[in-house]
Amino acid sequence: MAIAQRFEPLFRPRSVTFIGASKSPMKWGFIVLSNLINGGFKGKIYPVNPKESEILNLKVYPSVDEIPEVSDLAVIVTPPSSVPPLIEDCLRKGIRAAVVITAGFAEVGEEGRKLQRQMADVARSGDMILVGPNCNGIMSPNWSLYPMMPPVFPQPGPLAMVTQSGNVGNSVVSRGMARGFGFSYYVSSGNEAHLGVTDFIEFFGEDPQTKVILSYVEGIRDGRRFLEVARRVSRTKPIVMLKVGETAAGARAALSHTAALTGSDATFAAAARQAGIIRAGDMDELFNIAATFIRQPVLKGRRVGIVTVGGGWGVLAADACAKAGLDVVQLPEETMKELNSILPPWWSRGNPVDLVAGMRAGDIRNSLEALLRCPQVDGVIVLGAMGAAPKQEEGPTSFLSLMAMAGGNLFEDVPQLIDKYRKPILLASDTFFGGIEWGRDMSAALGDKGLVCYPLPNHAAVALSSLAQYGEYLRENGYQ
Amino acid sequence: MAIAQRFEPLFRPRSVTFIGASKSPMKWGFIVLSNLINGGFKGKIYPVNPKESEILNLKVYPSVDEIPEVSDLAVIVTPPSSVPPLIEDCLRKGIRAAVVITAGFAEVGEEGRKLQRQMADVARSGDMILVGPNCNGIMSPNWSLYPMMPPVFPQPGPLAMVTQSGNVGNSVVSRGMARGFGFSYYVSSGNEAHLGVTDFIEFFGEDPQTKVILSYVEGIRDGRRFLEVARRVSRTKPIVMLKVGETAAGARAALSHTAALTGSDATFAAAARQAGIIRAGDMDELFNIAATFIRQPVLKGRRVGIVTVGGGWGVLAADACAKAGLDVVQLPEETMKELNSILPPWWSRGNPVDLVAGMRAGDIRNSLEALLRCPQVDGVIVLGAMGAAPKQEEGPTSFLSLMAMAGGNLFEDVPQLIDKYRKPILLASDTFFGGIEWGRDMSAALGDKGLVCYPLPNHAAVALSSLAQYGEYLRENGYQ
Repeated sequence: MAIAQRFEPLFRPRSVTFIGASKSPMKWGFIVLSNLINGGFKGKIYPVNPKESEILNLKVYPSVDEIPEVSDLAVIVTPPSSVPPLIEDCLRKGIRAAVVITAGFAEVGEEGRKLQRQMADVARSGDMILVGPNCNGIMSPNWSLYPMMPPVFPQPGPLAMVTQSGNVGNSVVSRGMARGFGFSYYVSSGNEAHLGVTDFIEFFGEDPQTKVILSYVEGIRDGRRFLEVARRVSRTKPIVMLKVGETAAGARAALSHTAALTGSDATFAAAARQAGIIRAGDMDELFNIAATFIRQPVLKGRRVGIVTVGGGWGVLAADACAKAGLDVVQLPEETMKELNSILPPWWSRGNPVDLVAGMRAGDIRNSLEALLRCPQVDGVIVLGAMGAAPKQEEGPTSFLSLMAMAGGNLFEDVPQLIDKYRKPILLASDTFFGGIEWGRDMSAALGDKGLVCYPLPNHAAVALSSLAQYGEYLRENGYQ
Repeated sequence: MAIAQRFEPLFRPRSVTFIGASKSPMKWGFIVLSNLINGGFKGKIYPVNPKESEILNLKVYPSVDEIPEVSDLAVIVTPPSSVPPLIEDCLRKGIRAAVVITAGFAEVGEEGRKLQRQMADVARSGDMILVGPNCNGIMSPNWSLYPMMPPVFPQPGPLAMVTQSGNVGNSVVSRGMARGFGFSYYVSSGNEAHLGVTDFIEFFGEDPQTKVILSYVEGIRDGRRFLEVARRVSRTKPIVMLKVGETAAGARAALSHTAALTGSDATFAAAARQAGIIRAGDMDELFNIAATFIRQPVLKGRRVGIVTVGGGWGVLAADACAKAGLDVVQLPEETMKELNSILPPWWSRGNPVDLVAGMRAGDIRNSLEALLRCPQVDGVIVLGAMGAAPKQEEGPTSFLSLMAMAGGNLFEDVPQLIDKYRKPILLASDTFFGGIEWGRDMSAALGDKGLVCYPLPNHAAVALSSLAQYGEYLRENGYQ
């Protein structure tokens, strides 16, 4: 069966059977059902609970058998021991996909492991696909499908995420939402009784709506197949991964969390590199790096130019670039001359190009373009140009107006400049000055263009370095 | 002269002479003056500009000479070549402190260096103190004094910052404001023609309102004195420092920024360690670590307990703790028994104590206290308990109510538990679910108690490790 077709009942179900629906607002059986409803799912929802007749204005069925329709998807939140027989009910009914949110399986010991195996065996026996157990749900925003524990409703977009931790997954999705980015899919794979990280990376690889893949991984169960799939997918789509269990303490924690065996980090690191996987150091990096790939071209070399409104951010960026393996290149005579002709006499006369709070209209944009034109510069980081945000005319003080004037239409221009020069342009700036709502609006407006304003210069440096790494991988393997 | 007395005209001036006042809203001479006014300064302000008679409803004087009063402090924003004679005017008038915001001195070359030397010589000849040039201002919130380039008005509080970069300084102060923390003083020391980082650390060390010192440093000009002062101050107050120029690229950038010679990082690192200085890796860390010292006791050992609402955050925290040199200790039999008696059967049976989204009332609080009681645990990190925020009753969904129930009065209880057990309790959680305003309110309410909710588990691990490092320093030197 083609991959897209296999995942159809999971991500594009016509109706959903919800097993374990509850009337108590403090139970997951109520909260997950609410989120499914509030997410705007267009199909029918059939709650199941033998003791209730109506929940949240939906008719409740005593069992799966008695539902008048065959749903494509079942969502299950009942206690562990009830799950394997319920999966049998679903299979008998003709349901082709299940998300088991319930925890208390392989991660808690031998009995749980047995239950988990039973559940997976049932599913496999009938060609059913199964997500979980011990997960916090899935999302398919293009289908308005959000059967999730927390109330998170990202818009549709180019990011797809598979995560072995639901709460890490949420944290990353929430970051995306705060920055105006949308998701094609989200899967909390939990204990991976049946489908796992590899299956979803493979599916995302073929999905036309997905441009970049995010993953949080504790342990890989099928190393060989995983690397084979990752190698294939990363030819066309970057796979960004937060892999934990680097330390003994982390490995122990992972074992008790999802029963994952993390394995040797050195071995994983080497294999991941060969498969083109880009590793992130924490949740911020995971989101930042992934978002960078949406709109930015890969770096052709490692030579970086930096434009900064203030010196300190420039120094921090220079240090961070060097630590990330990038070369804060000494600018050639010609570019220096050009900058001298553009900028006031007090500019830094070097790279970073520091405008020293000069703030004349056009200086930021013109310096940026001088660096983009320079053949010795492969990509540019622009620091502190937050005043170029939309709605700058509403800025509370003349300080913001000044910043806005200095920034000009920078945020409008950046996408065009990226396309014109085929070089990445990364923005990093504080957004505090305008208030948090203003920062949120600016982030959202940038997100609509596929751009991020990184909150720290080192975040931009790490993201730029990832563009270099992926570019090197593609070239070394003859994919580009 | 006693230190406090020497800095009196700078931080508690009765009136301020503002040289270079401008009517143009896009000039720093207008913006800085506006900020001084908007900050609520109680004393008189005397703008100076030979071409104007009134700016922002203030009478403008043609020269310093013609001002009817002797101000304690002058703020100067006029072009570089005008500054040395103006400092002479100030000195002649009897003004005892000056903040020179103007850039274009030693950082741009020989001529600037000469001007800077002249300016400093004038100040020294008359026992005047001088901040800058090439700085973005100072703040003395207890005195409602904010002569600053950007409009940032932190409330008074226990943090004091000295920074060789104004824009880095702002970024850090803004972080503090966003988290509900106040500042006793802020100094952007710029090129340090006269006063530098060492002088302000010495002053902060003796200032009764300051509990923790933050610093951003590119280069130290007086290494021996700096270490002597730092050693003395760090006996009683933690000095947290972001020191840049670790790499050649960063060192070059620092030279063109503030004409600072960064020196060898290895040499600095060794000296800093001996002086009890706690180094931060970026701006987030600088704020996070400093804020941690306000309310948390130092760690007595490096053994950490972790309580988490969800597994993934626990694994990330365990990895981060191990990387930060902390020991995610295996819990003794007795504590395991206690936890077994408190928690539902599906808990992780180890450290991290993972509640697996169990969310029963009291579980978080009871687990936390079990870990605090355990003699093998020196400090605890609590992850994901964001629902315990104030105003939880206004949460938009039953998800937030559930989180609030699970968290109980945790945020109220933490300060008491810290005092009862004399062990640090660090909180890390997302705050996205409730919306950004809710996150801000939660942060502010925690800030009022001197607590931070770190946005990432690794931030909490690094902060906890700093508490361990400082504790070790104090004990090794017999200060505690």
